[in-house]
Amino acid sequence: MPGKTSIIVHSGEMDKIYSALIIGSGSLSMGMEVSMYFTFFGLLRLKKDGLDKGSLSKMNMLGLGRWMVKRRMRAAGVEELHKLMSDFRELGGRIIACEMTMEVMGITRSQLREDLIDEYGAVGTYVNEAKDSQITLFI
Amino acid sequence: MPGKTSIIVHSGEMDKIYSALIIGSGSLSMGMEVSMYFTFFGLLRLKKDGLDKGSLSKMNMLGLGRWMVKRRMRAAGVEELHKLMSDFRELGGRIIACEMTMEVMGITRSQLREDLIDEYGAVGTYVNEAKDSQITLFI
Amino acid sequence: MPGKTSIIVHSGEMDKIYSALIIGSGSLSMGMEVSMYFTFFGLLRLKKDGLDKGSLSKMNMLGLGRWMVKRRMRAAGVEELHKLMSDFRELGGRIIACEMTMEVMGITRSQLREDLIDEYGAVGTYVNEAKDSQITLFI
Repeated sequence: MPGKTSIIVHSGEMDKIYSALIIGSGSLSMGMEVSMYFTFFGLLRLKKDGLDKGSLSKMNMLGLGRWMVKRRMRAAGVEELHKLMSDFRELGGRIIACEMTMEVMGITRSQLREDLIDEYGAVGTYVNEAKDSQITLFI
Repeated sequence: MPGKTSIIVHSGEMDKIYSALIIGSGSLSMGMEVSMYFTFFGLLRLKKDGLDKGSLSKMNMLGLGRWMVKRRMRAAGVEELHKLMSDFRELGGRIIACEMTMEVMGITRSQLREDLIDEYGAVGTYVNEAKDSQITLFI
Repeated sequence: MPGKTSIIVHSGEMDKIYSALIIGSGSLSMGMEVSMYFTFFGLLRLKKDGLDKGSLSKMNMLGLGRWMVKRRMRAAGVEELHKLMSDFRELGGRIIACEMTMEVMGITRSQLREDLIDEYGAVGTYVNEAKDSQITLFI
């Protein structure tokens, strides 16, 4: 039984979104089920321009320029965020958007990338996913 | 068997404390046992003025003013941190304070909200909670 | 059966590395298996000068000076990062270095503390560790 991975994406930092999607797709590749619950700053990444605005600022802090990071990522076979997200969903991964964050931030469904979102839910939705999961992460 | 959730609260960021308490109370509502282990910056939130000092700075960075965030949180039924914390404990959630952080930071029990704390413990206390948990998170 | 703990060390913040190592060694002391997967900013801590450069900046933000933190840590029996890392490995803990981060950052094995690293791996290595773990954390 390959099991299940449930990830809360609370952070909006680009490097964290990368980690989340890489772990998510990695779990899917090994036959696991995966759901990612986007909340707080993570949810903002699901806005229509959310993945573009991705600042590489923290990456830059590593002493490499943005251009260099991009070039090396390409060489290492690491995809752009857009591509990682659609790969994740093509592999069968599910994305849940946090309705509480939407209410507090005043975000409507039409402002979100509805094509990427499988479900709109609250904390109960997350707990239901996570309680049967072998891997639970807060990112 | 509804299971158990164990959360390490390492961060002192207000948005992270919110997430932790919402997940904690959500798990309790679904019949799970929950313990939250407050350590490092998280422990400072258990100081007598720790929940008041909560800066909404990061929330503000989302482009909303503090007043707007508060108003929308009320509309969405999201409680203030004080209320969330007491709700969590009324639902049966347990709060553990990290003794190592207390020693390193020179914090005494009388400086902490002793009314909120169920137990004072070390890493062994946490591991004992977490090894039987279905949901384990580091926040 | 004491079980297993799998920790992703994504952050490079000194306080987070401390937490990770304390939880790792705590789990080992209670008879669990432990692996820590160092990636992104965490991996940079495995560079030859990575543990030295550790800024105590965040610790300082707690209102204590660096010197005071060091003195109190000694009094509380909390070791320096170097010592914590070697203690962790002597207790049987395993350290995995993320090859993707190495490629993207252009880091070679000879630039890393090879004496501390048990394995070089990718996300599949992590998922294999984590899917049989009782405690899974993203730090």
